[in-house]
Amino acid sequence: MDNSAGQASNEGGNPNENQWYTLALKYAKHYAGKVEVLPKVPITGLKDFSYWYTPGVAAVSMEISKNKDLSFELTGRWNTIAVVGDGSRVLGLGNIGGEAALPVLEGKALIFKYLGGVNAVPIPLGTQDAAKIKQTVMALEPAFGGINLEDIESPKCFQILDDLRSSMNIPVWHDDQQGTAGASLAALMNALKLTDRRLADSVIVLFGSGAANIATTRLLIAAGADPGKLVLVDSKGVLHAEREDMDELMLKHPLKYELGIKTNKIGVRGGVEEALKGADVLIAASKPGPGVIKKEWVSRMNHDSIVFALANPTPEIWPWELREAGARIIATGRSDFPNQVNNSLVFPAVFRGALDSRCRMITDSVVIAAAKELAAFAEEKGLRDDYIIPTMEEWEVYPRVAAAVASKVVEEGLARRNLTKRQFYEQAQMIISKSRFIVERSMEMGYIEPLPGGD
Amino acid sequence: MDNSAGQASNEGGNPNENQWYTLALKYAKHYAGKVEVLPKVPITGLKDFSYWYTPGVAAVSMEISKNKDLSFELTGRWNTIAVVGDGSRVLGLGNIGGEAALPVLEGKALIFKYLGGVNAVPIPLGTQDAAKIKQTVMALEPAFGGINLEDIESPKCFQILDDLRSSMNIPVWHDDQQGTAGASLAALMNALKLTDRRLADSVIVLFGSGAANIATTRLLIAAGADPGKLVLVDSKGVLHAEREDMDELMLKHPLKYELGIKTNKIGVRGGVEEALKGADVLIAASKPGPGVIKKEWVSRMNHDSIVFALANPTPEIWPWELREAGARIIATGRSDFPNQVNNSLVFPAVFRGALDSRCRMITDSVVIAAAKELAAFAEEKGLRDDYIIPTMEEWEVYPRVAAAVASKVVEEGLARRNLTKRQFYEQAQMIISKSRFIVERSMEMGYIEPLPGGD
Repeated sequence: MDNSAGQASNEGGNPNENQWYTLALKYAKHYAGKVEVLPKVPITGLKDFSYWYTPGVAAVSMEISKNKDLSFELTGRWNTIAVVGDGSRVLGLGNIGGEAALPVLEGKALIFKYLGGVNAVPIPLGTQDAAKIKQTVMALEPAFGGINLEDIESPKCFQILDDLRSSMNIPVWHDDQQGTAGASLAALMNALKLTDRRLADSVIVLFGSGAANIATTRLLIAAGADPGKLVLVDSKGVLHAEREDMDELMLKHPLKYELGIKTNKIGVRGGVEEALKGADVLIAASKPGPGVIKKEWVSRMNHDSIVFALANPTPEIWPWELREAGARIIATGRSDFPNQVNNSLVFPAVFRGALDSRCRMITDSVVIAAAKELAAFAEEKGLRDDYIIPTMEEWEVYPRVAAAVASKVVEEGLARRNLTKRQFYEQAQMIISKSRFIVERSMEMGYIEPLPGGD
Repeated sequence: MDNSAGQASNEGGNPNENQWYTLALKYAKHYAGKVEVLPKVPITGLKDFSYWYTPGVAAVSMEISKNKDLSFELTGRWNTIAVVGDGSRVLGLGNIGGEAALPVLEGKALIFKYLGGVNAVPIPLGTQDAAKIKQTVMALEPAFGGINLEDIESPKCFQILDDLRSSMNIPVWHDDQQGTAGASLAALMNALKLTDRRLADSVIVLFGSGAANIATTRLLIAAGADPGKLVLVDSKGVLHAEREDMDELMLKHPLKYELGIKTNKIGVRGGVEEALKGADVLIAASKPGPGVIKKEWVSRMNHDSIVFALANPTPEIWPWELREAGARIIATGRSDFPNQVNNSLVFPAVFRGALDSRCRMITDSVVIAAAKELAAFAEEKGLRDDYIIPTMEEWEVYPRVAAAVASKVVEEGLARRNLTKRQFYEQAQMIISKSRFIVERSMEMGYIEPLPGGD
């Protein structure tokens, strides 16, 4: 699942999807790249290279050789991450390879800078072999303060993430897992408040078992959901400990096997239709709709039901159908409906906080802290059935979430740098504002050329 | 050998080396990074991500999935390279590891942008194993239009370069080999003109057999030198086919073994002292002097002898000693003496030309074309004993060399893009000027902060 940063098609006057395609191609040709590498130090002449380069730079290298962590203080590592993908599951396009993944990774790098002030280098890989991906990413460690994995197919993405998290000393994040799970958790926390539910008591159906929902299931458990009341549904129906493919899953998809053992102690059998009977919550991250989920199934859910239909570009079922079926709180992955569950609310802020604390690892607790802060922000503004999560336009939310993340990292003992929450907030706000300011001024000055006119 | 872009110590009023160290450390702390990643496309609001990111970007990815080479037209790949090192031989500091190499790679990235208009991403690696380095660099191919290897120790650097060059479809360059060799060849061509010599007839002693001189020897042969008249000297003395360690070299350093077979058909035996008797040219790239080469050895060279003493930070023998010993043309790696043999004259322009032609491989012929253009530029300005190679301040040389490189790439059938030499020149000039302009304006506007004042 990729919960897009984009606006969708049925807003007044906006182009439809085909028109977005046309514009995207036209602009891609015109600009040939979305980000560039620029000096951040003054250069007045070649003699300046005596301290930026040799001979002076030798002193900087020597300092770091005595203490590698000084690379976070004396180089740009503290604010630079790699956005790494293998092109095996790009948007809804499937396995299209590294080169074809590059435009998406560049777009992600653009968002990282614009919303999080993070220097993100798009790095599509020329291999799709899990062992080689891991070895390559591990070899990149000295260059970066963090790694954002992107568009790597399930199930190999799970083992890759878990192995890299445990073997590297910088945070490794798979946005299709953790970003989506974090945004879903934030929205769910507020939806539960509005409907007077507790997470631990709620029966939650997770429809679709790709990267997003497997990660969401794990995060819900870490956040206090009762695993026995979670029901995962995949193309073969409801997952449970006696399902006939459990032996196969043990070998091929150990994480799903483990969830098969842990979840669904309430004895649900059959398909999604059966699972929804009396359920409190449905989180669907399956395949583009409409028509993937039927109204009559939803109408059999518990009263005041909560439904997140997160498939992109089209939700599994339209919001108005959900309303007709009696769902009370409705969220999608789209910006043109209320309650957009959007990982762009999460990843720029999480990395801002992780980088500002010189984080070694982003634990589940850190993701939960980010989700709680997102939820708290919306709650402070005033929760409504159609406002359970902030929108991307609410800029103030990013430094808030960054500070919550950084403080949690410190609390978990995974920080190289210990500031107060207030200091983390101020630093995040300053960095993010600066990056947006530079973009605005560069446009005014013409270094960033205006969009080309009509054909 | 790293022929620094820096000015050295004995210029009037300039700080000495210790002062450069102090400044470099102070500024490294202040700026914490020399380059950053910035948007190069306009962003006026979040709706713009509908074409920079999803849903629009899917159309760009689909186009590239049909033809991978379109990644050079529709993304920033055409102008982005990786500067990759393993920290095994950093400047004169030896094996200090990836993190400690990062400040140097950042400095190189700065020069790439400032002199070549190239987006260069510094990537120090966390492995020093040759096979893993190769596998990692190969995995990076879809992200970049070229690879600059840096500060990788000899002899493993030779096989790494040769293997990557032959297996990748983007140019791979090891600056410590090819950059230095290219600059040396350019300077030598003009020195030979001034002393009425022909390359094919000259007896050339190469003192030191690290990355630089092994590469220079290979390039000299490719450029028309008589291998039999080249004499390589390492710490064990003159290399020749009967030297007792030839069997060992065959296994451990096949390239040197091969040169042991090919070179020195003139029967020189002994050490550098013996080798220099009657030699026309000495190219020293051994270890920092002074005192590594003695005046009396040089005085036994042929009349009008040519000596390049390229060790950094201090040449193997001071230029005034060479003059006293009768050398006519004298070059060093330093900017505070005339005739600086400097790879910063080569790599930014070579990559500019390689990228503008969407080059698949930089062959020896391309390096020779770059050297010839460098030499021709100096010749047009008027050769003198103390002006055999352009200085770094002669900005006009970079687009000239870039155009020569690009045209040679086209001629060799290794280009994805075919323009005239004039067009290549104009494009290179435009791109390089723009990158310097942006730096200047960013300083004026204050996005790039002025240097901090005194302590």
